[in-house]
Amino acid sequence: MPDLQPKDPDFEARVRASFTRQAAMESLGITILRLQAGEIELAMPYNAAFTQQHGFMHAGIITTALDSACGYAAFSLMPADAGVLTIEFKTNLLAPAKGELFTFRGHVLKPGRTITVCEAQAFAHDGGSSKLVASMTATLMALLDHESVRG
Amino acid sequence: MPDLQPKDPDFEARVRASFTRQAAMESLGITILRLQAGEIELAMPYNAAFTQQHGFMHAGIITTALDSACGYAAFSLMPADAGVLTIEFKTNLLAPAKGELFTFRGHVLKPGRTITVCEAQAFAHDGGSSKLVASMTATLMALLDHESVRG
Amino acid sequence: MPDLQPKDPDFEARVRASFTRQAAMESLGITILRLQAGEIELAMPYNAAFTQQHGFMHAGIITTALDSACGYAAFSLMPADAGVLTIEFKTNLLAPAKGELFTFRGHVLKPGRTITVCEAQAFAHDGGSSKLVASMTATLMALLDHESVRG
Amino acid sequence: MPDLQPKDPDFEARVRASFTRQAAMESLGITILRLQAGEIELAMPYNAAFTQQHGFMHAGIITTALDSACGYAAFSLMPADAGVLTIEFKTNLLAPAKGELFTFRGHVLKPGRTITVCEAQAFAHDGGSSKLVASMTATLMALLDHESVRG
Repeated sequence: MPDLQPKDPDFEARVRASFTRQAAMESLGITILRLQAGEIELAMPYNAAFTQQHGFMHAGIITTALDSACGYAAFSLMPADAGVLTIEFKTNLLAPAKGELFTFRGHVLKPGRTITVCEAQAFAHDGGSSKLVASMTATLMALLDHESVRG
Repeated sequence: MPDLQPKDPDFEARVRASFTRQAAMESLGITILRLQAGEIELAMPYNAAFTQQHGFMHAGIITTALDSACGYAAFSLMPADAGVLTIEFKTNLLAPAKGELFTFRGHVLKPGRTITVCEAQAFAHDGGSSKLVASMTATLMALLDHESVRG
Repeated sequence: MPDLQPKDPDFEARVRASFTRQAAMESLGITILRLQAGEIELAMPYNAAFTQQHGFMHAGIITTALDSACGYAAFSLMPADAGVLTIEFKTNLLAPAKGELFTFRGHVLKPGRTITVCEAQAFAHDGGSSKLVASMTATLMALLDHESVRG
Repeated sequence: MPDLQPKDPDFEARVRASFTRQAAMESLGITILRLQAGEIELAMPYNAAFTQQHGFMHAGIITTALDSACGYAAFSLMPADAGVLTIEFKTNLLAPAKGELFTFRGHVLKPGRTITVCEAQAFAHDGGSSKLVASMTATLMALLDHESVRG
């Protein structure tokens, strides 16, 4: 199990403030359901405006939420003055993103001073059932001296 | 060099029709700049509604356009009755997505009857200069017998 | 939880026979520790012949074992006449592969008729302690009609 | 085009010395064919000892050579006192690794002070023909203050 001690006791306020500054989250209706050190859960309603050719949510939109889940899971463990930058992520699409509501669980797999590796999973909720529809592995970087890209 | 012979001579109309059905493309302002067999170029203007915490385009939104570029590059080579499904993609974020306009070039690296591998690159255009800001490798699958997910 | 019902009741003999045909496993000293439907655990001793420039096991060698773990986890669920092919994998290197013994746990995340997605983790054992050193996500394909690449 | 100016004029000697310390390269018969700043080409003969169940080179062994190609392409641009660490890589397997000889071309896509992104391709040579069999995208990190993992 990774050591998920936050370096900043006020990580929750810091994560929520940065999340609020992500205009994409509001435009996509993505909200924070649950937040703790090294872990976060987001939710997004179905929105026909962001679908692909079969009427399911676009894989890139699912990825947008997964990326934010990974980024904020990582950011929650970083020092108060750090910014967070996504270096790369990979998404596996496991089933069509068909549902009324989607949730995204991100957690830190390996925290580090510079590099943090996170995983996230996307679930589609349809009627009473839930289904894993996508998974992500992401590499994030802490920026300690780049004021301009602060989290 | 891969063999980029389209199996469907009417691939262009088929790609454009499917692209038009992707509501996410219209919502994000993504359009087709150029299309040929196994290759496509898309464009997307800057839109403050889809930014991350520093005001740059969200990596997931850049990925949405890259995914469509890969998907339609692959789809252009598929038989007329095939659907296309993204199995997975990986995005490397190379520089902040800062610019007025973004373009996305996708091409088929390895076509196949079932599996097609594509690459795409995202460029940010700012003032007179252009910069590579992200790259993707994606695996796509041709669906020949799944009416419900036809391209 | 994915449905990990094997289609072939004799999957264990089939997996072990294919594993034995992988000369690379014997050359690297990789053996099967544990096998069940959709899950496998492999072991590999430290071997100075396969190290990188700092004397740790080469990331590609760790990846070789992770790939086999993913491949055989997937193969265990496939029909008796199927072959298995790796489409792609991604490895995150989380810590130097430093230890006397390495173990690799692979499991099926999402089984499918054609496409199966697996995850695997590599652990280094050194003295009495164990450490997660790498993780993989892999996409595998069942080949039902390609005699020449049968598993 | 990325700026491929080496920070160390003696990069070639430094790359070759580090490569020689990778015991895995000698055990697999991998050699440097060509080296310049930000680019490298490696070669590996077919070796039945490192095959998978169908007698082709194991995907993990192909990945070992691709990883070294990416690592040394990145390392060639780094300062003289830096070490190089692979953070992650993804390999797409495009065709069976069937041939007498394999070559691997790695180049830097995006150099950076801390993070470098590289791409590499593997080719199989069989009789007079050559075929692209795998591609990799890799993220490398320069270590400037970790003596113990110096390149």
